[in-house]
Formats: sequence, C-alpha cells, structure tokens
Amino acid sequence: MKIARHIRSLEGYVPGEQPRSRRVIKLNTNENPYPPSPKCSKVLASFDLDRLRRYPDPNCSALAEAIAKANGTTADRVFVGNGSDEILSLCARAFVENDESIGSLDPSYSLYKTLAAIRDVKWVGLPSGRAAGTDIDIRRTPLDDRLALFLLTNPNAPTGEFREPASVAAFARRFKGVVLVDEAYADFACANCMSLATAPRNRNVIVMRTFSKSYSLAGLRVGYCIGPRDLIEALYKIKDSYNVDAVAQSVALAAFNDRVYHGKTVAKVVKTRRAFSAALEKLGWDVIPSEANFVFAKPPAPQKAKDIFARLKEKSIFVRYFPGPLTGDRLRITIGTDAEMAVFLTALKGI
Amino acid sequence: MKIARHIRSLEGYVPGEQPRSRRVIKLNTNENPYPPSPKCSKVLASFDLDRLRRYPDPNCSALAEAIAKANGTTADRVFVGNGSDEILSLCARAFVENDESIGSLDPSYSLYKTLAAIRDVKWVGLPSGRAAGTDIDIRRTPLDDRLALFLLTNPNAPTGEFREPASVAAFARRFKGVVLVDEAYADFACANCMSLATAPRNRNVIVMRTFSKSYSLAGLRVGYCIGPRDLIEALYKIKDSYNVDAVAQSVALAAFNDRVYHGKTVAKVVKTRRAFSAALEKLGWDVIPSEANFVFAKPPAPQKAKDIFARLKEKSIFVRYFPGPLTGDRLRITIGTDAEMAVFLTALKGI
Repeated sequence: MKIARHIRSLEGYVPGEQPRSRRVIKLNTNENPYPPSPKCSKVLASFDLDRLRRYPDPNCSALAEAIAKANGTTADRVFVGNGSDEILSLCARAFVENDESIGSLDPSYSLYKTLAAIRDVKWVGLPSGRAAGTDIDIRRTPLDDRLALFLLTNPNAPTGEFREPASVAAFARRFKGVVLVDEAYADFACANCMSLATAPRNRNVIVMRTFSKSYSLAGLRVGYCIGPRDLIEALYKIKDSYNVDAVAQSVALAAFNDRVYHGKTVAKVVKTRRAFSAALEKLGWDVIPSEANFVFAKPPAPQKAKDIFARLKEKSIFVRYFPGPLTGDRLRITIGTDAEMAVFLTALKGI
Repeated sequence: MKIARHIRSLEGYVPGEQPRSRRVIKLNTNENPYPPSPKCSKVLASFDLDRLRRYPDPNCSALAEAIAKANGTTADRVFVGNGSDEILSLCARAFVENDESIGSLDPSYSLYKTLAAIRDVKWVGLPSGRAAGTDIDIRRTPLDDRLALFLLTNPNAPTGEFREPASVAAFARRFKGVVLVDEAYADFACANCMSLATAPRNRNVIVMRTFSKSYSLAGLRVGYCIGPRDLIEALYKIKDSYNVDAVAQSVALAAFNDRVYHGKTVAKVVKTRRAFSAALEKLGWDVIPSEANFVFAKPPAPQKAKDIFARLKEKSIFVRYFPGPLTGDRLRITIGTDAEMAVFLTALKGI
C-alpha cells in the first residue's frame, strides 16, 4: 500500500501564514520584531567556506557547552536540535511506545496533536487555564494510565499564561512518564522551570528552549533541551547523524553569547506587551495576563474574533485565529514594535 | 519506563570520525576535497539578517523549483530535507507499517540498518556485488513479503559499484513497496536513475540526491528527492514544519545554480579517481571499479586492511574501515586532491 495507513488519513499541521510581502504587519507567528544580534552578521560574513565542505560537529559541542555552562550543568545533559520541532518529534519517538499516548494542556500549541497523529498514538488534552473556562488543577487531575509523554508549554500558547515552577514540579512528581516543559517563551516570563531540569535528582523533566523567539532566529532552526542524562542520550541515539548545520551552530552560539543584546531585546518586547495589553483592555477587550511575546484576547461583545481577524487581514495586518470551542472567541496577537502595535490599535478602532 | 524498549537496546549509528585537527588528511567520510562554489560565500556575506528573524519558507519553494526545472519535472514532485538523513528517516516512517521491514543491498550504507532499528522494524539485507562475492541478480532474488521500503544506493557505498538504470527499473517493477534510490554519489557516475523518478507513470521510485558530496556542502545539511506526487506529499505531511533553515536554502540554491563550477569540480574528482585506482592496482590492490568519489579496495596478501587502516591513522591519514565478513578485507578511501592521494600512496609504500 506504499503509504502507511495512519499517514494516508493524516491532516498535516498548518503553520501560521508566511506572507511574502514585506509590507504586511506580521503579528501571527510570534516572531521577534527586532533583528538578531549584530554578532550573527559577523559570523555569516566571515564564515570559512571550507567548514561547509566537511560534515558539521554531530553533537554541536561548542553550543552545548555554552548552554550547559550558562545553566550550571554539563553538556551531556544538553541536546541541540534542528529547531524545537525536531526535539518534539524525537521525544515522541524516544519516550512513547506504540500503545501509549501523548498529552498536553488544552488549549495549547496545536502542533502537539499533529505530532501524536504522525506518531500514530492517542493525544490526550488536559483542559486548563482561563480559555478552557475551568479551575482544573493539573496537580490533581486524574491522568490517563497510558500517558507516556506530556508536553507542557510554559508560558502556555496561545494563552500566554504562566504556571509556577512549583506547580510544574508537583505535576512531574506524580507523572510516571516524561514531562517536556516547552519554554519557547520563557525568556519573556517572570520565571522558568530550568532548575527542575538541571536538578541532580531529576528523573523525568526535560526543559526545552528555542532560538526562534527571544533570539530572533526563527529562520535558523535551532532549539535545545536539558534533562536527565539517560533521556538526553536516548535523543542522541535516534537523531539524524548531523542534525544541525555548521552555519546554524555558529550563528546560534554568537547570539547566545551576546547576553546584553538579548536582554535589551527581551526587555523591549516585555515593555510593549504591558502597554499594549493595557491599551487593549481600555478598548474593552478581555486580555489574559501574558508572560509571553503575544497576548490572547477576546473582543467586547458583539464583536467576533473571527470577523476582526478577517478585517485586519484586509488591512494587511496578520494575527492568528484558532477556531474551536476553547479558542474561537479570541485572537492571538504577537507583540511587535511599538509602532506596529500603534498601527494595530488604530486599525482596530477603525473596524 | 520512560525510554521506549527498542531504543534502550539500540546502538546508535557511528558516523565516520571528524578529527578537529586540520592537519589530518581526511579520506574517511567522502567529503569533496574542493570548496563549494564561491557563489555560496557571496550569499553568506550578504545575507539579510532580517530573514533570520522570520520563519523560513516551509517548502523550500525557490530551491524546489530550481531542482524541478533542472530535472524536467514540477516542484510538487520534489522534497527538500535537512540532509538526505532526514529524508531517509521520514521515508522509514511514511512508507513502513510497524510490522513491515526495510531492505537494502548488503553491503551498503551502514546507516540503513540503524534506521530500521530506530524505526523498530526488521532490516533485510540483499547480498549483492563483488564485496558479497556473489552473482546475485536483484532482478530475480526472492523478496521478503513484508519488505515495504528498499533503500538502493547507486552507485553503492562502500563499494562504488554502479547498477544500470534498466536493472533498477526491473527491480522496482517487481517490488510492491517504495524503492528509494540513494544517489548521493550519482554526480560522479556515468549515468543515473533520475528518469525513473520523473517518469509520469512512476508509482514507487524515489530518487534522492544530496548537496554533501558533489556540491561540497556536507556542513550545510541539504538533500532532496524526486518521486511520485502522492509519496512526496506523504513526506511533507510528516516533516517538521520548517525543516530546512533560511541560510541553507539560499546557499544550496546558489551552489545548485553554479552549474559550471559544479561540473568542473566533479570532473576533477573523477579524473583523480581514475588515476588513483590505477596507481593502487599497480601496488597489487584489488580495486572495485568505482563510479563514486571513493574506492573500496583490498590490499595484496598478506597485508590486512585493518592493520593498514591503523598504520595510516598513525600517520594522520584517515580512511574508513568497516569490520564484518563482507567488508572487513577492504578499505574505503575517499578521493581527495591529487596532492592528498600522492601523500596517501607514499605513506602506503612506507607501510
């Protein structure tokens, strides 16, 4: 039959639209409005072509060492991937048997469901947070016995809600499988769970970060995770031999080492998020307090999120709309520059 | 149990050694001795950093279009991957059910066996070629009924043997699953199987190429394949959303479009291969006629391949030795520059 059964019926993940025009105000895929560190330009401009002739370092040693050092751990507890996407896909294969399942919060990053479908296992959603309209405490919710991997985004997407590390730790303690804390947006948050990953006694928590958001390197595809040695080793065993190219390794390292630039960029985004959230609330929107580089907000009745999404698009302003019972009444709006948010607010008033 | 059963017992693939010293003569991983096209430098030096801020084109459209055009087909029959490695891994998941198996020639690229182990399915080797010491005709060998994917390297590695397209076509016709022809080395060969992939009536042949060998871009991680529309679509469905980064897409396109430089580089390698094969034979070695950028050769008795491998390494000359009944009496020697091969031959005479 050539194509495997479960793939024939599969609907692929649909990433946010990437319009080719540069004239669009693009607030739909949580990219950083500021360019990456100027150090990245230097690396590209002076890149020794002869390094491309040879295979890259299969273990991203220099980058893994820098990441380990910055987090007070050792490089054998660090795994670098071709974007966080690759790490997610590897975890779905390394930590889940064919008859087990993958869980995540609901709502959360919609890729997780597709990931389970690609892996041909069940996906289990744990309703949580204000968008789900519940007071469920994930430290106490009954868990499916076959759950082997839980993908816990913190701050969560698309809601921006932050969960206290103590709450994540309590959840992980009672979870028999692997908890991957997807911290794609953690640099914009007040705290993070990295200490759970680096703790010597940690047996099942992996914390994942990406260069796509706070480092402004979405185009480069570099993500990493830190966790217990045996789990990290399992990822190394099944990854492609040379999963991160030589250019990406060097450019990411340059960005990682430019701590001052990174700090400034993040501070600017956080400041704009606060001002924008307040401005939206003034217009009567219900804004979930966000610790990420986006907000998830509901327009005042009788306005409909879906209609506003369409009207904004007509004005070349792209935001993200997720249909569905838990998400369909809100828009996810990426934090751009102050100027972009001002254009957004003006456009909104005109609708 | 956290780590999946079959992965706990897995021995990862061991890629060829990548010594850090530049003073080594590196003839062990089939890299091209000549640098990539100078056009690649220009792309890197002038790369607009703002493009890294945004997600890359998820479908590598510009590169896929160029590849399609050069091969007289359409872009929807082209898939670009994060190296051929990613394509192999995707095929193992897209075209193989849990109770089916993956086949390849034996000997062949040793990664294939690891790939089947990672996918947790059986690997079936089809003895073939001079190193196997057989006259087996793969057009007639009985095939395992559960074989769903056959990875046919042509020219084969590590032997360098070339199989006529007509023979591959005959094999594919009687094969019920998907035949992936791994043409990593085809640019160094007298012919190739691309017309089988682009044929309108093709139902099960995928031909795969890489930028790692003839384009001297092993460090960049770009490979591609061409095949029937439905099979290519299945790969798109299960790939990571943004599998090839923006820099890699642009640099690979520049290399691909520099046809003149590519042709010259390939011609130099082929010329050196011919001269080196003849020189080795003069020293009493049995050299399998190669259509790739390496030769697989047996030293004259009583010399042992394994010993020569070790002695060369002491002299900072790296070649590849594959233990095992079908391969352990030979060395795989990558074709370097004329100067490198001269150093190799001198060293050999001194052993």
